[in-house]
Amino acid sequence: MIGAIEAGGTKFVCGIGNETGDILERVTIPTTTPEETLKQVVEFFDGKKIERLGVGSFGPIDLDPESRGYGSITSTPKPHWSHFNLIGELKKHFPIPITFDTDVNAAALGESVWGAAKGLDSCLYITVGTGIGVGALTEGKLVHGLTHPEMGHIMVRRHPDDTYAGGCPYHGDCLEGVASGPAIEARWGKKAIELVDNNQVWKMEAYYLAQAIANYILILSPKKVILGGGVMNQMHLFPLIREQVTTILAGYVHHKQILEEMDTYIVPPGLGNNAGLVGALGLVL
Amino acid sequence: MIGAIEAGGTKFVCGIGNETGDILERVTIPTTTPEETLKQVVEFFDGKKIERLGVGSFGPIDLDPESRGYGSITSTPKPHWSHFNLIGELKKHFPIPITFDTDVNAAALGESVWGAAKGLDSCLYITVGTGIGVGALTEGKLVHGLTHPEMGHIMVRRHPDDTYAGGCPYHGDCLEGVASGPAIEARWGKKAIELVDNNQVWKMEAYYLAQAIANYILILSPKKVILGGGVMNQMHLFPLIREQVTTILAGYVHHKQILEEMDTYIVPPGLGNNAGLVGALGLVL
Repeated sequence: MIGAIEAGGTKFVCGIGNETGDILERVTIPTTTPEETLKQVVEFFDGKKIERLGVGSFGPIDLDPESRGYGSITSTPKPHWSHFNLIGELKKHFPIPITFDTDVNAAALGESVWGAAKGLDSCLYITVGTGIGVGALTEGKLVHGLTHPEMGHIMVRRHPDDTYAGGCPYHGDCLEGVASGPAIEARWGKKAIELVDNNQVWKMEAYYLAQAIANYILILSPKKVILGGGVMNQMHLFPLIREQVTTILAGYVHHKQILEEMDTYIVPPGLGNNAGLVGALGLVL
Repeated sequence: MIGAIEAGGTKFVCGIGNETGDILERVTIPTTTPEETLKQVVEFFDGKKIERLGVGSFGPIDLDPESRGYGSITSTPKPHWSHFNLIGELKKHFPIPITFDTDVNAAALGESVWGAAKGLDSCLYITVGTGIGVGALTEGKLVHGLTHPEMGHIMVRRHPDDTYAGGCPYHGDCLEGVASGPAIEARWGKKAIELVDNNQVWKMEAYYLAQAIANYILILSPKKVILGGGVMNQMHLFPLIREQVTTILAGYVHHKQILEEMDTYIVPPGLGNNAGLVGALGLVL
């Protein structure tokens, strides 16, 4: 039995699974204060005899094993959670091997083992929702360096018709600042879900996401690009994004997958909304 | 004895070295036609009893072992070299293990073993010259995916004072299109070397390179960023680039190396102009 936690800013999804990626039991717990939330998490796993635990978390997080803060959520704007040591707290209750990574790295791993990038040693998992996060698998390994990637914050060229200043508290009009769910709402004055029939909204959204994806492709050359998250429930975004990525790359990246098979290259998650939880399971395989 | 080739668009540098990264003998051969150049390369290695050979090449190149074109230079604008199978030709003369990668990936590896990123499992090697190329080591491995990275071609935001359209035949004003040596010359009407005292030139150059580097940091989180190539001989570019990278990241990436130690983070090659040749040696260790 393996435990898995997808620790999100809105909810914690906890599950019990096995080595073939099946989730046998799961529970969803609202993310309130660390004390309240963790109490319920511990209750769920208590007595379940899990041997290992994988945790994919919202961030930024401290993944440096040499650091005193290892296992913490670091400088989140989310009240109460800044510098909370999630793994330290879990270790108190479950003295078992625990593997910790970002929620999006976990999802990228899950998709590569059981989902849309099954069998591939490289892929990207991009979530577009309240924020924009990206996990990356390259040469069979999840990407880390000084810290974990923060690809949602790259700079993009502004759309000529976009008058919205951008909502990122750090960078203003970085990708997340102009293309996250809250940015769409702030720019157009309505929630994304109420703008489904407004083509201009989605063309602009695709313009920004395609630019970022083209840069990711030029930098990492992933074998599959997977897009999930609330905003990507607008499935009509996929063809718009594929078209603009093709236009931006302009035939420069000579690979059949990009030149001829874009429909199977930029795709929705194979694991649907389970990518994060199943990926957390994958972290401890 | 190990053989190493740094195969460049202007010259091939061939060397004989050992496992500690020492180059014992070297020769420089002009890059003319494949026939002429390879003849001299073969003559150099003939009778030297090399057991393995590492080749770092200009690109784009075909690195897919499953591909019929494996070992080729693919769609280069350089006359005579398009689709020339460099490794196939070398194999005819030297039936020994040959490892093939991009010149910049080789340089990144060399820097991580013997140079400025010694002992680190992640770094970037960026060359700014006739073109802009980047090699990347992540989690101890050189980055490849569908193809090898082509990071020099990412899109950047235009400098508000820049009226130059950009010189990339594929993308116009991508990074290489606005910040390579030829782009500087085309924009200002003089060679970079004649513009040394014109601050505006270097501020604009740093603006573009810093944008790209900030994006690379957000995407790969490298532990060291190494800048080489002809344009980077202008050492006064380093402080300008460091300053602008710091401004763009705006304190978001919480790591001491970026927040406090930028002077030892974005640096020149530890191996100087030998990074490519020594890196090619490193490919077969």
